Amino acid sequence: MPILPFDDDQKLFALMKEQLYSAVLCDALDQVGYRQQAMRADIRPIHLDAVVVGRAVTMQSVDVYEPEENEYEQEIAAVDSLKPGDVLVASTQQSTRTCVWGELLSTAAMARGANGAVIDGYTRDVRLIQKMGFPLFSTGIYPVDSAGRGVVINYNRPVNCGDVIVSPGDVVFGDYDGVVVIPKDALRAVIERAAAKVEGENITREELHKGATLRQVFDKYGVL
Amino acid sequence: MPILPFDDDQKLFALMKEQLYSAVLCDALDQVGYRQQAMRADIRPIHLDAVVVGRAVTMQSVDVYEPEENEYEQEIAAVDSLKPGDVLVASTQQSTRTCVWGELLSTAAMARGANGAVIDGYTRDVRLIQKMGFPLFSTGIYPVDSAGRGVVINYNRPVNCGDVIVSPGDVVFGDYDGVVVIPKDALRAVIERAAAKVEGENITREELHKGATLRQVFDKYGVL
Amino acid sequence: MPILPFDDDQKLFALMKEQLYSAVLCDALDQVGYRQQAMRADIRPIHLDAVVVGRAVTMQSVDVYEPEENEYEQEIAAVDSLKPGDVLVASTQQSTRTCVWGELLSTAAMARGANGAVIDGYTRDVRLIQKMGFPLFSTGIYPVDSAGRGVVINYNRPVNCGDVIVSPGDVVFGDYDGVVVIPKDALRAVIERAAAKVEGENITREELHKGATLRQVFDKYGVL
Amino acid sequence: MPILPFDDDQKLFALMKEQLYSAVLCDALDQVGYRQQAMRADIRPIHLDAVVVGRAVTMQSVDVYEPEENEYEQEIAAVDSLKPGDVLVASTQQSTRTCVWGELLSTAAMARGANGAVIDGYTRDVRLIQKMGFPLFSTGIYPVDSAGRGVVINYNRPVNCGDVIVSPGDVVFGDYDGVVVIPKDALRAVIERAAAKVEGENITREELHKGATLRQVFDKYGVL
Amino acid sequence: MPILPFDDDQKLFALMKEQLYSAVLCDALDQVGYRQQAMRADIRPIHLDAVVVGRAVTMQSVDVYEPEENEYEQEIAAVDSLKPGDVLVASTQQSTRTCVWGELLSTAAMARGANGAVIDGYTRDVRLIQKMGFPLFSTGIYPVDSAGRGVVINYNRPVNCGDVIVSPGDVVFGDYDGVVVIPKDALRAVIERAAAKVEGENITREELHKGATLRQVFDKYGVL
Amino acid sequence: MPILPFDDDQKLFALMKEQLYSAVLCDALDQVGYRQQAMRADIRPIHLDAVVVGRAVTMQSVDVYEPEENEYEQEIAAVDSLKPGDVLVASTQQSTRTCVWGELLSTAAMARGANGAVIDGYTRDVRLIQKMGFPLFSTGIYPVDSAGRGVVINYNRPVNCGDVIVSPGDVVFGDYDGVVVIPKDALRAVIERAAAKVEGENITREELHKGATLRQVFDKYGVL
Repeated sequence: MPILPFDDDQKLFALMKEQLYSAVLCDALDQVGYRQQAMRADIRPIHLDAVVVGRAVTMQSVDVYEPEENEYEQEIAAVDSLKPGDVLVASTQQSTRTCVWGELLSTAAMARGANGAVIDGYTRDVRLIQKMGFPLFSTGIYPVDSAGRGVVINYNRPVNCGDVIVSPGDVVFGDYDGVVVIPKDALRAVIERAAAKVEGENITREELHKGATLRQVFDKYGVL
Repeated sequence: MPILPFDDDQKLFALMKEQLYSAVLCDALDQVGYRQQAMRADIRPIHLDAVVVGRAVTMQSVDVYEPEENEYEQEIAAVDSLKPGDVLVASTQQSTRTCVWGELLSTAAMARGANGAVIDGYTRDVRLIQKMGFPLFSTGIYPVDSAGRGVVINYNRPVNCGDVIVSPGDVVFGDYDGVVVIPKDALRAVIERAAAKVEGENITREELHKGATLRQVFDKYGVL
Repeated sequence: MPILPFDDDQKLFALMKEQLYSAVLCDALDQVGYRQQAMRADIRPIHLDAVVVGRAVTMQSVDVYEPEENEYEQEIAAVDSLKPGDVLVASTQQSTRTCVWGELLSTAAMARGANGAVIDGYTRDVRLIQKMGFPLFSTGIYPVDSAGRGVVINYNRPVNCGDVIVSPGDVVFGDYDGVVVIPKDALRAVIERAAAKVEGENITREELHKGATLRQVFDKYGVL
Repeated sequence: MPILPFDDDQKLFALMKEQLYSAVLCDALDQVGYRQQAMRADIRPIHLDAVVVGRAVTMQSVDVYEPEENEYEQEIAAVDSLKPGDVLVASTQQSTRTCVWGELLSTAAMARGANGAVIDGYTRDVRLIQKMGFPLFSTGIYPVDSAGRGVVINYNRPVNCGDVIVSPGDVVFGDYDGVVVIPKDALRAVIERAAAKVEGENITREELHKGATLRQVFDKYGVL
Repeated sequence: MPILPFDDDQKLFALMKEQLYSAVLCDALDQVGYRQQAMRADIRPIHLDAVVVGRAVTMQSVDVYEPEENEYEQEIAAVDSLKPGDVLVASTQQSTRTCVWGELLSTAAMARGANGAVIDGYTRDVRLIQKMGFPLFSTGIYPVDSAGRGVVINYNRPVNCGDVIVSPGDVVFGDYDGVVVIPKDALRAVIERAAAKVEGENITREELHKGATLRQVFDKYGVL
Repeated sequence: MPILPFDDDQKLFALMKEQLYSAVLCDALDQVGYRQQAMRADIRPIHLDAVVVGRAVTMQSVDVYEPEENEYEQEIAAVDSLKPGDVLVASTQQSTRTCVWGELLSTAAMARGANGAVIDGYTRDVRLIQKMGFPLFSTGIYPVDSAGRGVVINYNRPVNCGDVIVSPGDVVFGDYDGVVVIPKDALRAVIERAAAKVEGENITREELHKGATLRQVFDKYGVL
């Protein structure tokens, strides 16, 4: 990995997207003592090759049972606040009633330069969003509108997304193996260790291909 | 959308399949006061491009623990009763024991002209059914036979499929976003509103692409 | 099906992979009185065309909450013990905390000649394992390492995998419809019946295509 | 039952508490077409003889992950708004993180004259509340404080409590069999039918005691 | 234990009720090779001292979504068929919609001489049934009527009750520790072993009271 | 509260049992920054007045599917190691297959002077254990023996009990509101704060009884 551009989020995220992956980031997080940073396994990408990396902008939806005045106000503000390199992270307290994301929000988020969205809840318009190439992760797909079912009550507060507490500004990385949250203060330490570990894995993989046993590889390199 | 052929199910369903989708039908159902018409999110299509639309023929399976005499009688009658444009809708009370659908039933249903099947339960022979192009939605895939595990006890009674009560003759629409049930008496009202909403969405999408904020679009059109 | 090579596992498994499938094996197991041999429906292949067949080598993982000495010892021994034609079958007591399988273990298993792995638990490195063509079935995908989260405590003891008790040496067969376990002593009886049933299904399918009702087909052949 | 004091809530509720019970109210609700009015079976009284009846004052709690300013404001307002004959009905979207009720709130509610509380969530201080004789129903018992875990975001909006939508002013009736919600506009019709049904049951019970079969009783009275 | 009256069910059941308990019966069932005979732990008695023992009369309820003609026919027949010493065992496929048991059925069952009921589903009228002293076990308490929610479709067929398959005539034993099913053909063997084990436990308990370690007791008697 | 005997566990635990309770200990733990110390709400005492306090001796059980040699070895060692003031804390990875505790183990634990047991899993012999007065908390009641179902694989390692990580030597406190774990290093700080809070609550309760609103009490004392 080249010298890491820690002073330029966009460049850094592009490099992470190209060279790192969620599993090695988890291992690096373990090394620096963050062991609860992988979201629940039911938060899945909407297509095989979706990869997301960016700064978390969080929002919280809560179930409602009648239409509300200004029910879209906070959600509109959250999405309109997105800047290039941001990732929208939404919590719904695992609602199975509402659907908090869809094509128009994806369109608006992309237009603002956002890198993707991670929803602990449902999305709709999935075929269209796949075609747009917008990296989207969610717990399920459900065709209903949120009006009268769920309201975003605030944004940029800490939220529970996939049983990880995500604070605004944390770096979110998602690929086919899952979604990982890197606390903003640990970013440099995590990426440096992850980059180092990628190289190590190339060596052990090579030895296994050549026929070494796991025992031999582990005794030699001390890692699996 | 052209003048809608409400007197010709087959033409109407073909037009719906081509121009509508589950999300916009949900929105239209909301407008006419039906707010519980989307099936649970774990009822999924067996491939990305499956779309089903048609009149519901319902059947109910119940778990059993020994072989029964004439155990296939009601199931055979249900499938043999299918007419062009019908969709088989099966409930199993969310059984994880039996598998109520498979390739031979799909073959028989297609031969009768049925448009697809929606199963609140398990199916098998999925790769073959994908190849046949039969639109199939289910909660899971499981390789066992139903004999001695589940029996269809009746058909064309109201059933719970995905937590929506489906009556025979209701119109079922399913795509990648989920499965929606349109009560037969609301069909015209729902389709007319859905067709109108499709056009509205094209406009808002366009504005968002051009860089308008959600706030601006919402203030101008009053919808998301 | 030609004369079955019951004295040559590798040939037998190749023939099974080519000509049989999980659903017909379930039906044959039913015929010989084994009715609980299909794993829970949430154990899924990591790609559409994954097919696995082979002799079970079992291992058991248990959740832990601190790193252990020699934590990889049993897991390394299990994987290094794999012989051509084996399938690694892992139980985690449905852990949602750890991830028991990944790319390096897949690489090591393939290098030993193993035919695949079935995990009642999570895997990671899924995109890489797909590319390797290693047939892998699991309950979910999760990017964390097992160190300090789960430890393999033994191997080649009976385990619960997907609510089927699997003993070392049982034959495991998995495809898109699910994973089935054939007790080692029932192998010949099951395969012979499965082969016979495949032929029968070709005939009934043909008649349904020609327009026969299910009733007619069932009355004539006595099976569905 | 004497002439029912529909113009005096307190008298009416006292009479209901003495002479009616949740099961007969459900049957009466069925008769007038309300069939979804019994809360989920996991909402249980904290002691065997708890009976609650009164007008619903609703409130909604949502999980949070850091302390908030004025986090108690809405909860305080809700409890301080209670009038004699009211029942506090709280929804937490089935939170397992927070505990929305306890002894001090019970004390405050009793001091205002409230008749009890029904919580779709957890309570604490249960032994003390039992001693106070405050009728309390909840889904569980959990010793944590709500501060930094859950915040009441509003009150007297419709809420989902035990999968029944409860509107402010609906009449809530709970006993050992469960909690039932009587929509305010249906109150008179429901109580009149319930009172009539109580008398009918006394007759059928008597006949069964004397040895009549269910068949005879059903044929004679047409009910079970 | 005196000579066991295997030719007189009523005497045998009275003796079992007095001297045996579910845990020791499980241990005896283990000894004779039946290891799946304890019902799921969520089937609980309605009071602390409920003990039930008797011959199973089984019935199966299935959810429905509209009233049916003759909806009570099978349920009436099942209860009216009860003879002294019988226990009603009901399966609902774990329905959370209906309530299959209540006071009138308890009254009718007691009047026929039945020894109790075990319901894999909900009951109502629980306080009254407690007062009647009718031993009742169920998964929950729910105040609704079954009409239009569930229908008994047959009786005296094998059913799944608490994940144990119960056949008519099996002996059911339930106390505060749970409900156990003794296959009818194993009854003598199980009771003889259970009676022997009760005596052994008295000895080991005594030694532990006197201060022996578990190690000493286990080394001496070979059991825990 | 008198001067706290931090140098004498037995005296300290007796004082805690008499004057403190789980809710106030949770609040004190919150104050010192431990916010995840209450076990899941499904770990319940076996009777209303059970209170347990003591030093954790932990053990871990794992499901097995055949009898093992020396299957009781670790469990015997764990229980025989108990000293006065200890509490046995057992994890089973939430097994619904085995039953890890019962009367003989309770007898042995009491004979060693243990103060109680907390099981994230099932117990049996509950009526007897109630009569012994042994404070026992568990997730359920199930009559089977552990032999061939579960084996204790080690003791005095950190375990997950009710979703709290418990290390040997932590202080466990359980009453009707739930079970709380006090990390050993935080014991003094927690108890001092808890004692102070008990006094504060007496004052606010008094004011509410006299008719003060929650608002007034909160404005005056700054706590609820």
